[in-house]
Amino acid sequence: MKKIYDIQNMLRNIGTKQVMLYDTLSIYYAIGAKFYPHERFLALLVKDEGKPVLFLNNLFPCEELDGIEIVRFNDNDDYLGVFCNYLVGGKLAVDKNLPSRFLLPIMEKHHDVCISSVVEDLRLAKDQDEVQKMRASSRLNDEIMEQVEKFLHVGVSDKEVEEYIFSLYKKYNVVPSFEPIVAFKNTASDPHASANGQILTEEDVCIVDMGLILDDYCSDMTRTFVYNYPKMEEIYRIVLKANLAAESMIRPGVKFSDIDKAARSVIEAAGYGEYFTHRTGHGIGLEVHEPKDVSSANDDVVREGYCFSIEPGIYLPGVGGVRIEDLVVVTADGCEVLNLYRK
Amino acid sequence: MKKIYDIQNMLRNIGTKQVMLYDTLSIYYAIGAKFYPHERFLALLVKDEGKPVLFLNNLFPCEELDGIEIVRFNDNDDYLGVFCNYLVGGKLAVDKNLPSRFLLPIMEKHHDVCISSVVEDLRLAKDQDEVQKMRASSRLNDEIMEQVEKFLHVGVSDKEVEEYIFSLYKKYNVVPSFEPIVAFKNTASDPHASANGQILTEEDVCIVDMGLILDDYCSDMTRTFVYNYPKMEEIYRIVLKANLAAESMIRPGVKFSDIDKAARSVIEAAGYGEYFTHRTGHGIGLEVHEPKDVSSANDDVVREGYCFSIEPGIYLPGVGGVRIEDLVVVTADGCEVLNLYRK
Repeated sequence: MKKIYDIQNMLRNIGTKQVMLYDTLSIYYAIGAKFYPHERFLALLVKDEGKPVLFLNNLFPCEELDGIEIVRFNDNDDYLGVFCNYLVGGKLAVDKNLPSRFLLPIMEKHHDVCISSVVEDLRLAKDQDEVQKMRASSRLNDEIMEQVEKFLHVGVSDKEVEEYIFSLYKKYNVVPSFEPIVAFKNTASDPHASANGQILTEEDVCIVDMGLILDDYCSDMTRTFVYNYPKMEEIYRIVLKANLAAESMIRPGVKFSDIDKAARSVIEAAGYGEYFTHRTGHGIGLEVHEPKDVSSANDDVVREGYCFSIEPGIYLPGVGGVRIEDLVVVTADGCEVLNLYRK
Repeated sequence: MKKIYDIQNMLRNIGTKQVMLYDTLSIYYAIGAKFYPHERFLALLVKDEGKPVLFLNNLFPCEELDGIEIVRFNDNDDYLGVFCNYLVGGKLAVDKNLPSRFLLPIMEKHHDVCISSVVEDLRLAKDQDEVQKMRASSRLNDEIMEQVEKFLHVGVSDKEVEEYIFSLYKKYNVVPSFEPIVAFKNTASDPHASANGQILTEEDVCIVDMGLILDDYCSDMTRTFVYNYPKMEEIYRIVLKANLAAESMIRPGVKFSDIDKAARSVIEAAGYGEYFTHRTGHGIGLEVHEPKDVSSANDDVVREGYCFSIEPGIYLPGVGGVRIEDLVVVTADGCEVLNLYRK
């Protein structure tokens, strides 16, 4: 119930009486139970005091949940009417993803609705249990990266490497947190490249960007391997310096935009500023992309428990690219880098 | 532009000035271009007359589209403000899936919003080009089913069959339209069973329910294979009779509920009514589940071009189950069964 109290505290702080959660992972975050409603209605109503209420179709099995009232319904019931009867006067905060087919009928009965980021904001700062899961997810990602590096050899195709990664996910009984990227030479100069049948040559570069979901928490890392390719070795040293510069300055109170600047200015000083074409990082947790970006546009400050990626890159069109990405979690006086695999 | 005219005709018929499409496949249906916006804004605004307007983030590449005005924007632009400037007075119909993060800000400027099923309704009746694609998708599904039947042998596990199906999808360069179901014996008595490592025995039954997406259109079929299992042979004959009874009565003007009844009454007459635990079928097209259900609750009538599944089944707990599923398309005076693989 810890997370429910956090939500209720937050509601009292912002002076909002009630929030309606619809997003599967936000509900999971709040009560530890996961439901995929697909086209059906699902809601967790949390008021600033009292028992939260879960509205759940009878099609979805669910045990009793400690401290939660569960309202069950069938497809043909007036479940939105029942839901509205639970509302109190005043503003109703709703998830940013609530679909119009639920929102519009609710608004016919309850006009005062606003977008809520209450749970998203809470999800930013991971507690110790979550940090442990983020760590375990990245450790396994490290382990798989080690095997992928061993698998790389002249003559292998990017698709074979991709299949090998999938076979490792299967072996460890995990699912990818996103489609892995394996890109050689010129293909590696597109930051979002996908495998296209290219063969690894003696003088080459290989970007491997991959992640998995372990115990509901996502990992995401990139390593770049350079083989007898002096130009890319030079680029590699610059990107590594940018990666380390960013990671070394992270501590509570630092702005995301300044972390971005730390990485970007290394690359700019080396003359490759225009080839670092994306943000330095993104939030991560239950989802592989969560708020907030490590970018020049984000002047928010980082706080203890925030998890995000640090992934500077340089992409030289037609030549190749280098990206080095770790996940970090902000600690009381600095940060812990979750990826231990060598760079 | 044919589909745009259809939408505009429909708008005039229902007296609505404008509809905003957000759903990727509805926009694809309307203009033949596909965009996956993820968290970003996307909209196609169609008024009852004049050029439709596509609102598209600069991140998504797009050629010029004949007869469509394209409004481009960046993440930091006031794209919802720009969108609202294109609206005329009166009702704005919106997709049922439009998320609250777009809908609520739009409603601050334009109050009069309602849910629209204009494009969903149009998507029900497939035109000749779509029927041809539905046919091709089911033909390939038939071909794969033939190979799956050949692959089945005593000692094979359901998971091996599942992997074999995935390998065939890969070989034919298609993706599944849903997670295939392979279920033996007692597992087959759960209509939504998934492979759990069971081994096919000499006296057994095997349900294979699978589909793929070819040229954007979905297939979905089920065959049940009975091996030296007299009880299931008896059940098979009943389900086949139910499947054929339903298919033989389909023609424009017939109610979905009567098609359901045709299948259900065969099974009831044989004394197994309580073991046919689901609807007889569902709509299909660009998505594997589309409106309308073939069920006792749906008194709508079928019209030429409607595509749906006919999939009666009998599930005997702990013993086994049989389901036989084809896709059909309604013709001028009957229906075409899209699956030709023997039953």
